[in-house]
Amino acid sequence: MKREKVSELTTNRLSVYLRCLNMLLAANVTTVSSQRLAEEFNLNSAQIRKDLAHFGEFGVRGVGYDVRGLRDHLTSILGLDRPHRVAIIGAGNLGSALAGYYGWSASNFSVVALFDSDQDKIGLPTGATNSPVVQPMANFQQVVEDEAIDVAVIAVPGNAAQGVLNVVMDAGIKAVLNFAPARLHARPGVKIKTVDLTVSLETLSYFLARQPAPFVGETGNGAFARRNGAGEDHVQ
Amino acid sequence: MKREKVSELTTNRLSVYLRCLNMLLAANVTTVSSQRLAEEFNLNSAQIRKDLAHFGEFGVRGVGYDVRGLRDHLTSILGLDRPHRVAIIGAGNLGSALAGYYGWSASNFSVVALFDSDQDKIGLPTGATNSPVVQPMANFQQVVEDEAIDVAVIAVPGNAAQGVLNVVMDAGIKAVLNFAPARLHARPGVKIKTVDLTVSLETLSYFLARQPAPFVGETGNGAFARRNGAGEDHVQ
Repeated sequence: MKREKVSELTTNRLSVYLRCLNMLLAANVTTVSSQRLAEEFNLNSAQIRKDLAHFGEFGVRGVGYDVRGLRDHLTSILGLDRPHRVAIIGAGNLGSALAGYYGWSASNFSVVALFDSDQDKIGLPTGATNSPVVQPMANFQQVVEDEAIDVAVIAVPGNAAQGVLNVVMDAGIKAVLNFAPARLHARPGVKIKTVDLTVSLETLSYFLARQPAPFVGETGNGAFARRNGAGEDHVQ
Repeated sequence: MKREKVSELTTNRLSVYLRCLNMLLAANVTTVSSQRLAEEFNLNSAQIRKDLAHFGEFGVRGVGYDVRGLRDHLTSILGLDRPHRVAIIGAGNLGSALAGYYGWSASNFSVVALFDSDQDKIGLPTGATNSPVVQPMANFQQVVEDEAIDVAVIAVPGNAAQGVLNVVMDAGIKAVLNFAPARLHARPGVKIKTVDLTVSLETLSYFLARQPAPFVGETGNGAFARRNGAGEDHVQ
């Protein structure tokens, strides 16, 4: 397998393609063109061809891609054929929800430990389905070794995040998913992927601020009386 | 105020700058150079200057930016001086956590309603602090009008997401934060920001798959015995 380095935006798109291919396989589709892939899943066909070209020749001109072959290849490229074991730090609302997140079961990641610095939470289940009980941060390094944990999820307030990240890096973990609203400093060789809900919200805020006046819901309920064209589906 | 259109990546960065400026203000810093801003918050100073240049002249050469002036301007550019009212659809683990998310209180967004299609959840609080009670989806349009809701958060499984989005758009909502692992089709004039945890995880998986062998935690606990250099802080 080629081990070329590609950008994170490309990786993000490969992940989306993979999900689409899995849906096609589930529907017993064996061959698909970049065109059809694009139409069915709101993607860009030229971008698909360009992204996949990084990894060699998958398509047959006029026929398309072999769905299973491409799926297996993307799975391998993304390293999804190797299991990863996850620790979540922070057993508040968000950490608890992440512990019970339905997306884990469909992935190669499994949540095996949950930590919090609050003594009152130790030993308790979080309420989320299938969530592990909460352990004290003092056990972190030992649990990481015992459970062969290689991914950490940080779900603590912003001002506590760098301290937690340091403990995580000290324990030898190289991949971190961060939900804290903070810019974290990682040591070389450690990858942090930040999911910043505030940034997402502020992007929406920017969009709403640029809406033409009649489309902004700031003039009272009247703005909501406007409806979309009659040609569109109404699902209730 | 200039109303130039800028890319979403720029908007994301403006949001990060704003958070940094708010921290500086809280620490009574009145002037800051792009250099210092970059050093203090792990940013890129050339990028800061380029991003801010979109919106006119803020800096004084050799002195830097006026922190409060720049903060107020970014707040206005991002539309954060206008309140937005949010409905969350899906009262599962994730939706409930989002309803109690501590980030809302520091933003111009407030969660005023929570919906679910599961009859058993209707009328119940979710357990998260300050969360509204769960209402049935049949009430959605009426509640949106009564409560002047202009932002929707979709926290339902992937296969239910497009149906929910259609209801949301029918109610006249133009800004949507989507947590469902699905490619959604929005009508013109509707902005969807997707937070896709699976894609984030798969990016980490890709990173781990490309680690040199001794750095990957797949050879057993031995890999975790390796520690970082003694010169680094150990926070416990």
